Amino acid sequence: MTPSFALYVVTDEVVSGNRSHLECARAAVAGGADAIQLREKAKPPWEILAIARAIRAATAETGAIFIVNDRLDIALAAEADGVHLGQDDLPVAAARRIAPSPFLIGTSVGSAEEALRAERDGADYVAVSPVFATGSKADAGAGHGLEVVTAVRQVVRIPVIGIGGIGPANAADVIRAGADGCAVISAVLAQPDVAEAARSLRSVIVRALTDRRSESA
Amino acid sequence: MTPSFALYVVTDEVVSGNRSHLECARAAVAGGADAIQLREKAKPPWEILAIARAIRAATAETGAIFIVNDRLDIALAAEADGVHLGQDDLPVAAARRIAPSPFLIGTSVGSAEEALRAERDGADYVAVSPVFATGSKADAGAGHGLEVVTAVRQVVRIPVIGIGGIGPANAADVIRAGADGCAVISAVLAQPDVAEAARSLRSVIVRALTDRRSESA
Repeated sequence: MTPSFALYVVTDEVVSGNRSHLECARAAVAGGADAIQLREKAKPPWEILAIARAIRAATAETGAIFIVNDRLDIALAAEADGVHLGQDDLPVAAARRIAPSPFLIGTSVGSAEEALRAERDGADYVAVSPVFATGSKADAGAGHGLEVVTAVRQVVRIPVIGIGGIGPANAADVIRAGADGCAVISAVLAQPDVAEAARSLRSVIVRALTDRRSESA
Repeated sequence: MTPSFALYVVTDEVVSGNRSHLECARAAVAGGADAIQLREKAKPPWEILAIARAIRAATAETGAIFIVNDRLDIALAAEADGVHLGQDDLPVAAARRIAPSPFLIGTSVGSAEEALRAERDGADYVAVSPVFATGSKADAGAGHGLEVVTAVRQVVRIPVIGIGGIGPANAADVIRAGADGCAVISAVLAQPDVAEAARSLRSVIVRALTDRRSESA
């Protein structure tokens, strides 16, 4: 079965107003998040592993997918479901040789060409990153726009996720453009009630997915 | 067969006067280094992997052991012989579950107790770090001294390596204290002729190892 990535929440302790990764993850899954990605670049590896193990336990309770950013070794050690590889991280093909399916490998792409290569190299999903300009990731640059989501959707069979500048106001547009889900940081984690923000955003995404499926049926 | 770690060179582009990791590794193995560790904390993962693959090819020609610092995933992707885990990195037991023998796992220790735990958790060697005070690693602190090398040697069966402030003048002392090898950065890489520095330091170490064995025979 293809995993659902409808609402994919990337944890970030700064954007969340210094709530811990574990608190962010717990609140997001309480609000129905389908997938959680632990993204931590500053802490030492042993500490990231300890956090990952705690989130693994928290997500196991709800069945949410748990993905670790960048560090495939930490993802494997924490028994996460997968790893998310950015453009500076291990190449998808190298990661795939170490971690066979059903371990999930996702990667960020900026064009249909990159998405095709990722799929060919063994990726399980691609994230168009960033769809819109965003303040949550300092290095993300200008947005690729909805056209790139559509272009990626047309060339790959694996799930396509949008990330970057997505919130309640534009999430449905990202789904209509062809995405199977939206990944967010601040739209959920910068809100006072994270679980409620997740629940409400997820309902927008799921409604748009349902509308798209009924239109194409 | 127990691998030989007599002369173990840790690459460092700054200490080496901006020679690349690959140049450092090539020169060190040309001088007879038994093991090379790629230690790179600043570059992005994809680039560390590319460097690791190049060093893997260079060490394969001479049979030198090739170890990657910290990143078990990069070590596996580069088909290195092993990983070296510092105190901030993945715990040995977590790494061992991902990477079964004969993949080598080494770790830094500061006491006999830490060495015993590392051996029990599946380490293939321990590095007493630092033996002496050193300028090559900013965070290494004061030296543990030769007594700790001896104490570690008495409690574990796996190879014991000394690292930190070791050079031609004191390498034999480290071996006499019970080490099976010496790991160095600047004693080899900060020298104008790296291969010659490796050759000359290795002969000091091998002579001390030979003397120790004949004394105990």
